[in-house]
Formats: sequence, structure tokens, C-alpha cells
Amino acid sequence: MSLDQIIVEGKHLRLLKRDGWEFAQRKNIRGIVGIVAVTDERKLVLVEQMRIAIGRTVIEIPAGLVGDTPGMEHEDMAGAANRELEEETGYRATRMEFLASGASSAGMTDEMITIFRARGLVRRGPGGGDQTENIQVHEVALDHVPQWLMQRMIQGVVVDLKVYSALFFALQA
Amino acid sequence: MSLDQIIVEGKHLRLLKRDGWEFAQRKNIRGIVGIVAVTDERKLVLVEQMRIAIGRTVIEIPAGLVGDTPGMEHEDMAGAANRELEEETGYRATRMEFLASGASSAGMTDEMITIFRARGLVRRGPGGGDQTENIQVHEVALDHVPQWLMQRMIQGVVVDLKVYSALFFALQA
Repeated sequence: MSLDQIIVEGKHLRLLKRDGWEFAQRKNIRGIVGIVAVTDERKLVLVEQMRIAIGRTVIEIPAGLVGDTPGMEHEDMAGAANRELEEETGYRATRMEFLASGASSAGMTDEMITIFRARGLVRRGPGGGDQTENIQVHEVALDHVPQWLMQRMIQGVVVDLKVYSALFFALQA
Repeated sequence: MSLDQIIVEGKHLRLLKRDGWEFAQRKNIRGIVGIVAVTDERKLVLVEQMRIAIGRTVIEIPAGLVGDTPGMEHEDMAGAANRELEEETGYRATRMEFLASGASSAGMTDEMITIFRARGLVRRGPGGGDQTENIQVHEVALDHVPQWLMQRMIQGVVVDLKVYSALFFALQA
């Protein structure tokens, strides 16, 4: 593989060129985790927050960066998933099951996201994110999620496509 | 909303900063389409191609850019979806049903993808992509897709997470 040419170094992202192909890369992280969390009442736990790039609030699965916090560069992926789940939603899982690791948009970034299924949810706090975040938590009955997403889209809210991936996994077992 | 600061203009991507938040943006396109295509034999149609950013071949749903071809800047999304489906897989749909429009990775890009369900597939050619692409087409029995994806991952192939979104939609109806 040829050497990457750095087109620009931002603070959190860099733009690279490899074999003539441009793509964006996150900096200073070891991975990204996303969590499929279903409560005992068969409700899917989703988060909604303002996304500056999109210019709207976006409905997503709980997710976050791994290894981006000073002093926590070595946390493992399942541990990071549980930390993010609790920060964002207030739930903590008894265990995290690996579901898949995959690309979010392979044409424009090397970003890969590892998806876990949270098992044995216990409520530990209110959620809402860390001090830099303002996250609204939704719990939506699994069978009602597609209709609810369509209603929210009509209201102008954006849905992250991984929510539908989560629905697939949630309906499996 | 504050003005965007352009950190750098690449050929196909630019890196922007808005309210202190960095994100990547595709240039010269009007949209992106992805297609959920299920054959009459209940097989999901997937594509596999080398993705330079990832450094591996990636299994994805058929997808493509809208409005990036000179002279076709005004094609509509459903028309573009059918063009991409035929270029990549050789199938053409009798009609394209809108399923969802959503973000691929709202933390790092404003990219939004419009997902269609292809109805009434007719084989028109071999697929494989346009002259710049080298695409392998897979048709996998719907019930077998999750197991097949896991096998391919173990072999070192990367799966795009929208494949699981497609599975959700394909299993709906």
C-alpha cells in the first residue's frame, strides 16, 4: 500500500489521500462503539442530540469514541460501550455481547464502528451525556419504532441509519 | 447558524469547521442513494468492492452518488437509485419505494443517504460497476445473510453497517 498523503490535519479529523482517493479520518481514538439496548419492557433505548454537521437534532443509538479521554487510552471496547451507555442513557449492562464491527461510510472515511448488544440493563442514573453533551433519551416500544422514526422525520428530525441496523439486531433475539 | 470555515478544499471532499466543530463534506453531489434489493427467490443483492480508505474489500448495499455525472446533474433520487442498481448489480427495478433518509455518521460528516426498496427486479446485464469500478455481486438467501456476513468478517472482509439496516427493511415486507 502506498504512503498516505496528509492533505490537512484538523484538531479532531484529518483529510488524507491514498492512491488518489480522498478520505477523512478521526484522530486520537482507538475505536468507536455503538450499543443496541432493549429494556425488559421491550423498548429500544435511543438518544437524540444536536449534530452541528447536520444542523438538526439526530436520533441515534447510544455510541461514543474509545480511547479519546486522557488517562483512559487503554479501556477495552466492551468497557467503553458500557461507559457510553451509562453516560448517555443512565443504563448499565450486566454484559455486552459483540454483534458486528463495520464501516459507516467506506467511500469517504475509514471509520469503523463496533456494535454491542447490552444485556441485563440496570438503571443507574439519568443519562444525558457528559458535561459537553446535551442528550435526550427516548425509550420506544420495539414494534412501534419504525412508525415513530417516520413521524420524527416528518417533524424534521434526522435519523441515523444505524438505528435501523439496531432494529434488525434487536428483533433477532 | 454561523458561517462555515473551510479548513481545506480537496477534490472530492472538503473539511469544514462550524461553531468549533470539524466535519467532512462531499463536494459536487446532490445526494446519495442506497438500494435494498431482494430477488423473487428471496435473496438479498449485495456488492463487494475494494475500498481504499478501509484497505479491504467491503460488502455493502448497492449505492451511489446523485448528480455527480456531467450532464446528469438533475436526475431524481429514484432514477439515480435505479441507474446505480443496474450499473452495480445488473438488476433494474420496476419501481423504487422510498424507505428512509438518514445520516451515515453525524459526528463527522453531513452525509445523508436516501434508502429505496427496489420492487420488481428484472435482470438486464451483468453488473460490476462503471468503467472506474470493479464490483462483485452477491445474492444471499435472506435468512442466511447474518451467518454469511459473520463468515466473511472472519475471513477479513469488512461489512458496511447499512447492510444490517437493509436486512431490517428486507424482513419487514
